[in-house]
Parts: sequence; structure tokens; C-alpha cells
Amino acid sequence: MARARVLIRPKEGILDPQGKAVERALPALGFEGIEHVRVGRMVELEAEDPERLGELCEKLLANPLIEDYEIERLDGAA
Amino acid sequence: MARARVLIRPKEGILDPQGKAVERALPALGFEGIEHVRVGRMVELEAEDPERLGELCEKLLANPLIEDYEIERLDGAA
Repeated sequence: MARARVLIRPKEGILDPQGKAVERALPALGFEGIEHVRVGRMVELEAEDPERLGELCEKLLANPLIEDYEIERLDGAA
Repeated sequence: MARARVLIRPKEGILDPQGKAVERALPALGFEGIEHVRVGRMVELEAEDPERLGELCEKLLANPLIEDYEIERLDGAA
């Protein structure tokens, strides 16, 4: 089994209401100097056939119309 | 400004309904051999003072009762 992490984020140019909500909440909590907040999802899993993870992202984990995804292998393989 | 990524995941032992939902959806989509799916969040941002990101996670980004977080610097700094 190969361990992998999938990072899913809103595409450039797509509104990110969660990120904007974080940015608006910052001043009241005493944080300044934090910008360009983007909120996405992370999925960690173990796969027998990591070659199919791209297909899994397209079909289930991400919405390719509005999200980009990135697959990271966590077991040192390429 | 330092770029950073925060990974937020359900603590070990905490139920992860999103991960379970993904696992249950897999067979109907033709995927086998995928296990231990955990769904979390990813926040990417730029911070003037990255030393305060732990505090930001505790106060706003994560729920420390049920979630663990991990801060990754994306600009090569430690």
C-alpha cells in the first residue's frame, strides 16, 4: 500500500469564501499581516495502485471545474 | 512575507465522517484497494510573522479538541 496526500484548492480566480471569512476574522483576533488566505481540502489515504489517484481526484475528491488538485506520495516514491 | 501551508486533520481516534463517505463511495466508482481515507483541511497563506501561525491555528483555523494541525513553510525556511 502506498500512502498519499491529495491537496485540493480553489482554482486561481475562483472565489474562496472560506478564505475571505478567515481574512475578515483576523483583525478582531489580533492578527495583522496575514494575506492571501486560501482554504482547501486535504485527503490522506493508502492506495494499492497509486497510479489511479489522478482518476480518483477527477471523479470523486475534487471538482475539476473549480478546483485544482495535487497528489503527494508520502512513502518516498515518486 | 512568508508563505505557509497549514494541514488540519481529525485527531487519531476521532470519527471522520467525510473520510468514511469517500470510502463507501469508492466501490461504485470502480476503485478498490483504497483504505484509511482521512479528510482534513488545508489553509495556505502569507504571513509577516510566521512565528504566530501556531497561535492562529489554535484560535481560528483548527479546533484543537478534535483536530491536529501541522504548519509547513513553503519558502524554504525552517
